[in-house]
Amino acid sequence: MAATAVLLLSCPDRTGVVAAVADFVWRHGGNIVDAEQHTDDVDGVFFQRVEFELDGFAFERDDLPKAFWAVAERFDMDVRVHFSDERPRLAILASKASHCLEDLLNRWRAGELPAEVALVASNHPDHRALAEFSGVPFHHLPVGDGPDGAARQEAAMIELLEREQVERVVLARYMRILSPTFVERFPSRIINIHHSFLPAFVGAQPYRQAHERGVKVIGATAHYVTAELDEGPIIDQDVARVSHRDSVAELARKGRDLEVAVLARAVRADLEHRVLPFGNRTVVFH
Amino acid sequence: MAATAVLLLSCPDRTGVVAAVADFVWRHGGNIVDAEQHTDDVDGVFFQRVEFELDGFAFERDDLPKAFWAVAERFDMDVRVHFSDERPRLAILASKASHCLEDLLNRWRAGELPAEVALVASNHPDHRALAEFSGVPFHHLPVGDGPDGAARQEAAMIELLEREQVERVVLARYMRILSPTFVERFPSRIINIHHSFLPAFVGAQPYRQAHERGVKVIGATAHYVTAELDEGPIIDQDVARVSHRDSVAELARKGRDLEVAVLARAVRADLEHRVLPFGNRTVVFH
Amino acid sequence: MAATAVLLLSCPDRTGVVAAVADFVWRHGGNIVDAEQHTDDVDGVFFQRVEFELDGFAFERDDLPKAFWAVAERFDMDVRVHFSDERPRLAILASKASHCLEDLLNRWRAGELPAEVALVASNHPDHRALAEFSGVPFHHLPVGDGPDGAARQEAAMIELLEREQVERVVLARYMRILSPTFVERFPSRIINIHHSFLPAFVGAQPYRQAHERGVKVIGATAHYVTAELDEGPIIDQDVARVSHRDSVAELARKGRDLEVAVLARAVRADLEHRVLPFGNRTVVFH
Amino acid sequence: MAATAVLLLSCPDRTGVVAAVADFVWRHGGNIVDAEQHTDDVDGVFFQRVEFELDGFAFERDDLPKAFWAVAERFDMDVRVHFSDERPRLAILASKASHCLEDLLNRWRAGELPAEVALVASNHPDHRALAEFSGVPFHHLPVGDGPDGAARQEAAMIELLEREQVERVVLARYMRILSPTFVERFPSRIINIHHSFLPAFVGAQPYRQAHERGVKVIGATAHYVTAELDEGPIIDQDVARVSHRDSVAELARKGRDLEVAVLARAVRADLEHRVLPFGNRTVVFH
Repeated sequence: MAATAVLLLSCPDRTGVVAAVADFVWRHGGNIVDAEQHTDDVDGVFFQRVEFELDGFAFERDDLPKAFWAVAERFDMDVRVHFSDERPRLAILASKASHCLEDLLNRWRAGELPAEVALVASNHPDHRALAEFSGVPFHHLPVGDGPDGAARQEAAMIELLEREQVERVVLARYMRILSPTFVERFPSRIINIHHSFLPAFVGAQPYRQAHERGVKVIGATAHYVTAELDEGPIIDQDVARVSHRDSVAELARKGRDLEVAVLARAVRADLEHRVLPFGNRTVVFH
Repeated sequence: MAATAVLLLSCPDRTGVVAAVADFVWRHGGNIVDAEQHTDDVDGVFFQRVEFELDGFAFERDDLPKAFWAVAERFDMDVRVHFSDERPRLAILASKASHCLEDLLNRWRAGELPAEVALVASNHPDHRALAEFSGVPFHHLPVGDGPDGAARQEAAMIELLEREQVERVVLARYMRILSPTFVERFPSRIINIHHSFLPAFVGAQPYRQAHERGVKVIGATAHYVTAELDEGPIIDQDVARVSHRDSVAELARKGRDLEVAVLARAVRADLEHRVLPFGNRTVVFH
Repeated sequence: MAATAVLLLSCPDRTGVVAAVADFVWRHGGNIVDAEQHTDDVDGVFFQRVEFELDGFAFERDDLPKAFWAVAERFDMDVRVHFSDERPRLAILASKASHCLEDLLNRWRAGELPAEVALVASNHPDHRALAEFSGVPFHHLPVGDGPDGAARQEAAMIELLEREQVERVVLARYMRILSPTFVERFPSRIINIHHSFLPAFVGAQPYRQAHERGVKVIGATAHYVTAELDEGPIIDQDVARVSHRDSVAELARKGRDLEVAVLARAVRADLEHRVLPFGNRTVVFH
Repeated sequence: MAATAVLLLSCPDRTGVVAAVADFVWRHGGNIVDAEQHTDDVDGVFFQRVEFELDGFAFERDDLPKAFWAVAERFDMDVRVHFSDERPRLAILASKASHCLEDLLNRWRAGELPAEVALVASNHPDHRALAEFSGVPFHHLPVGDGPDGAARQEAAMIELLEREQVERVVLARYMRILSPTFVERFPSRIINIHHSFLPAFVGAQPYRQAHERGVKVIGATAHYVTAELDEGPIIDQDVARVSHRDSVAELARKGRDLEVAVLARAVRADLEHRVLPFGNRTVVFH
């Protein structure tokens, strides 16, 4: 696969945006291999993802943002620029449960995730062998005693992520609540998997709540983490049928398969630069 | 198809129930054609659905409950007895939207619903031609003016249902809230379709709420109606994938297909005597 | 909704197509409200659907193809031009089964299908009341006796469709095999629903075959009709889980719901000008 | 969980079977915790799965078959007896692809599979580290040169499986075709995952075939292996939606998730003694 550039744009909806972007790429020798757009009619916002081959393109990568500036300014655009062969450094955080971590590492080894898994970190020591089997450094950051144990653990985690120049954080059933400080360091860069079909069953015991309510379908939700717990923009969701036969433990077992699948899809969409958060929602190009 | 009897049982979980019921049927000449059971381990309750052929059975239908009494008493059972060829009288209530009503009438004409559709009633006049096309009487019960208009309309509805000896009520997007008085007349006999994946998005505007929250999956829920709005025992649910491209109107359009499918499955399960409500949940045998 | 034009393009994959089309629309005052593209890397073919508002556009509708000619010729394009407010005249053909016909008529009355349903025709007399309830003329074209009964019936059908200026034909469980002559009159204009997951179970008895093979999933397939039976380009498919409990009759009942859903989605995609057949496959923009 | 016995029965459909089995269990002190039955009306065969607690049961395990003999003979039954705490010795065979193997080992470590994974064997050397990470012995049995290389490899495999007293074999994308001799050693004991929705796309290249046919849904099928390739009784199937955007490689990637899920469900159903093959079909109790 030849290297491509991806432009992720949003701007007020106006005539001529599509033509201006296509013209810019074409005039400078780029070949558009994929383009998708969306207009939010309620808010009057235009979104676009444009992917073009860099081979033959007139500008160096570093000069692309500046070259595109005239177009971006004319339409009052927010622009993100990515390159398909630059793999972001990703950290996976986990607690006791291993299923999401195992799945992400397996997919990464299989070449399904365009990222560099820089590290696995956990408040528990259990997953060291698993991480190291995949050749990924493991960091055990336990929550210490005392009233500020949690705060110190979080500070150590932030320090680790920054030292390792981590660009994306995946909470693979990491059961610690992140402080606003943590979240602000990685805006729209932290993906969490919640083990319910949000907004139903927020909090720590969704399978128990689902069982008590007697639902016939359970779900899982992957979302960007914001300061409000379980309220961030949803990237992907999926569900599975259940019945009266399913105990809480059985719901949790079926739910694990959902969590694994939904988290992997969301992480992949994010790493392929197909997700644009806006307000509390997302545009997910396919 | 030969006529069958269906026993729907629940009792405290004890050794010997299965053998006692099977023995009762066999000793009196019945042939069990289907049996399914469930034990709720948390509450220690046993549920069973036993269906047997009446041909060759020792008792007349009317004598069956009495004959079964000794077994029922010994195990402290709640028992419901149904016969496959006795079709309950069913009323369909609708408001403006016609999709669920159309679907139920189509299925009924196609022989998919083992019921006698006794009437269609609505607070709007629109569906007369539709009902009469299927040969079903239509009753327009408008909500009158004045502070007691709603109460008078509901009283007229109850009077109609009782006069017509209705045994099952299906709320096919009937947008009036029923009073506790109405609900108590038909305990576990009224099925409603709610246009969301309960418990997410209760109330009258679920598609708008779903759009604002940016969910990637929408749902529909069929449940028995209890005095608490949208809180009754869930019979069936289903979902469909949606995306950022779907406006509120598009969610409503996709949702209509879900509502139709889920309501039809729930009504059919109920009419086939496969649903046992207990507390706020249901056992749905297949 | 303002009227829009839809360009459906395909051409050899070359640099500059996207820019040229966007530039054409923009220069002549059109506002692109949706654009989606696909490149088939194996065959080197580029496909695009571009939708733009006509309000303010420089050309009259009739002049649009000629105006676009320079672009189309330069890139060796196949182009189809549609207008969102010009609803094609559609004929629905059915045999004995009514479920797909009922569903399409219901959706049409609900405003979900952007077409003019010009007529319903059948080799059986049964659906007259149904069609006329929706205000659609019904034509009974029975298959006459004698060795050429089938040919005469088909000739009458073609004559009817042409007299009524029908532009789209939906085979809503129409169980007559169309001759190549019929098919050639409506290239990529006839949509059929096949009651299996093609290519499994071609022919007239798919549910029986599915039962004998013991599959755990059944399906339905909507496709454009070509001269080869059940071999045309697939527009949409869907499936449902089944089990050992499902008899052939029960498979057929579950299958009806699939057929209805898949056919409706395919017809809608076609009427919204989102489907591009190429060879034996289709591009279906969303 | 207390230990239970599972009776898997099939016999000609006759009155009194259910009562006789329930009576047998009850008279000897067993408590039925689950029972499910099915009657194949076409072939007149009755199937039942009865699970009862051993605590308090009158017979030792080894004596149970003999004790049940009178009932079995009276109704001309085929009977299999299993005990929930006796975990069958299972071998996983794989070739190059690792995804199904990884998933099964992960589930096994998580306690989801009631089996003893005795060994992993492969015609390739690649998966040694993976197997040993889970504490499972790995055997590399390469296909040697010469005209009888394949036969010698298979003979070595059979010898290995018998030496290790393997009771269940899972072909986790094992791409060698088994000879009838191999299959006969393990009747209804070998489960294969085929990477298509059988009976569509038999053979080695299903994703390529699916792409060429332009299907909109792909599938995976888990089945017992019989002498006819891809023709054995189906245990489970599932599907995923695809589109024109999916290349063959992308279909294969999506298909891997299906294969993993379907194989795991089928293996679990088999290990929980919920599957009864009959002819070319299966009864899968839930």
